[in-house]
Amino acid sequence: MPKQKTAPDSSRRSEAARRAILTAALDLVGELGYAKLSIEGIAAAAGVGKQTIYRWWPSKGALLFDALLTFATDGQDGQSAALPDTGDLAADLKLVLRATVAELNEPRYDQPMRALHTEIVHDPALAADYAERLDGPMREIKKERLRAAQRAGQLAGDVDLDVAVDLLFGPVLNRWLQRTAPLTPEYADQVVDTALRGLRPRDRQG
Amino acid sequence: MPKQKTAPDSSRRSEAARRAILTAALDLVGELGYAKLSIEGIAAAAGVGKQTIYRWWPSKGALLFDALLTFATDGQDGQSAALPDTGDLAADLKLVLRATVAELNEPRYDQPMRALHTEIVHDPALAADYAERLDGPMREIKKERLRAAQRAGQLAGDVDLDVAVDLLFGPVLNRWLQRTAPLTPEYADQVVDTALRGLRPRDRQG
Repeated sequence: MPKQKTAPDSSRRSEAARRAILTAALDLVGELGYAKLSIEGIAAAAGVGKQTIYRWWPSKGALLFDALLTFATDGQDGQSAALPDTGDLAADLKLVLRATVAELNEPRYDQPMRALHTEIVHDPALAADYAERLDGPMREIKKERLRAAQRAGQLAGDVDLDVAVDLLFGPVLNRWLQRTAPLTPEYADQVVDTALRGLRPRDRQG
Repeated sequence: MPKQKTAPDSSRRSEAARRAILTAALDLVGELGYAKLSIEGIAAAAGVGKQTIYRWWPSKGALLFDALLTFATDGQDGQSAALPDTGDLAADLKLVLRATVAELNEPRYDQPMRALHTEIVHDPALAADYAERLDGPMREIKKERLRAAQRAGQLAGDVDLDVAVDLLFGPVLNRWLQRTAPLTPEYADQVVDTALRGLRPRDRQG
């Protein structure tokens, strides 16, 4: 058995402190908004020293990203992440996008998700971390479902799957971020139907 | 003739100060980034007092938005804003989206445009102002081109034009903001082609 770097007790304590910090960060960002969120405030709420936080995270944005990632994957076994596949592509995509709409409309996620999505715009290192740990794996899961649809003849074989993901999943996020109009389940359905069938007129011979 | 509220000299001086402030804001955000941009710094660079700026703009975000809007509309007569219409919808949309790609890749616009797009995410008042003064009118111009395409039989008559605008114009902005992959003219073309023809397989009788 390899020698452990830290004794079990110490790593249990570290893990407890880590969870307390992540919980405090999510609670406080919901309460105060991201602009007023401070490392000092998080440290006080979590009962740890500021230096502990600075040792583990390079920025407020990185800490918040870890918090979202930790609580988003809690209760999942980490293996079963896949989009539903009932054989009906449109229905499966609507189910997923309606769930996204419901989550984005949750007050508890509003502030931290907005903060994450704006921090990555300004912070290339955080953007790379986000791409590697969240957007990349999520995109792969979406593309896997689209590949199955291609095999089933429900999606054109020559579609670029990254473009397909952008057309299907981008609009809901944009409408929420920019508040251009209310984000409803009906909008999710419309995006799926329109992206699948395209903007051109239907076959006139049909 | 109605009585003027301010004498011509005074309003000329105000306009000169306003332009100096807007220019300084754009210069400084490009140099320092949005996080380090301060009202103090802008006032010093523009040669005005801080109070002048606070009197005219409620926030750093609102000032930056005005700066972008002022310089984006300079040199336009304000009437001729329309998308090209050569009769070929796909070609016209590609032209517009490729121009957007080129603009977003301009270093001078990178910082201020990123700042604007993230400020509106956190500031509902600025988002409403943005919707009214920029996104709304631009969206109307895009929809006007799509309506012409519907009349010409190049776009399905029952497509929701807001959804169409979201599918056509959102992906380029997202890829730039999130840096998920390089933003190229080829990507612009792919988005247009894929949105127009849809993700479903082409008519198998064809």
